[in-house]
Amino acid sequence: MLVLITYDVSLIEGDGKTRLRRVSKLCQNYGQRVQNSVFECHIDAAQLASLKHQLIDIIDPEKDSLRFYQIGNQYKNKVEHIGVKKSLDLDSPLIF
Amino acid sequence: MLVLITYDVSLIEGDGKTRLRRVSKLCQNYGQRVQNSVFECHIDAAQLASLKHQLIDIIDPEKDSLRFYQIGNQYKNKVEHIGVKKSLDLDSPLIF
Repeated sequence: MLVLITYDVSLIEGDGKTRLRRVSKLCQNYGQRVQNSVFECHIDAAQLASLKHQLIDIIDPEKDSLRFYQIGNQYKNKVEHIGVKKSLDLDSPLIF
Repeated sequence: MLVLITYDVSLIEGDGKTRLRRVSKLCQNYGQRVQNSVFECHIDAAQLASLKHQLIDIIDPEKDSLRFYQIGNQYKNKVEHIGVKKSLDLDSPLIF
């Protein structure tokens, strides 16, 4: 199923950048970045549970937030993108 | 129906901040901010069309992006939030 994951990581204090990088890297293992803090993941329920568990371990729940939207399998006509595409993943090395 | 709207507005050049503020203010008229660049809107198809039209007029499609996810009406078990809640809207004046 398609699961949308959105996150806010607070950069106001100390280790926010580290948490943000770790959240981003972890989500990359499960899906595709479509906007700066938005990932689309084609995963099953077990993978979702595992990803959620790992993300909860990374974030600071008093400063950051995660949202999970289970879009299901019939998503083709439910998702629309307008504007520039997220074509580069700035956290990853460019490999040609 | 519940429509999720996520956006990336590029702040790298000149008027990005103005576009970001305008996108944010417009979305506030249609729904609730749940994260910095994520709004949930309970709107019908006509309202969605109108909102989309106005947002397209604001953004720079070569720098910014919008995504629309039609979650439908059966969303209660499909959406999960973890961590801090977005309780203040930083773009709006605090009115008590």
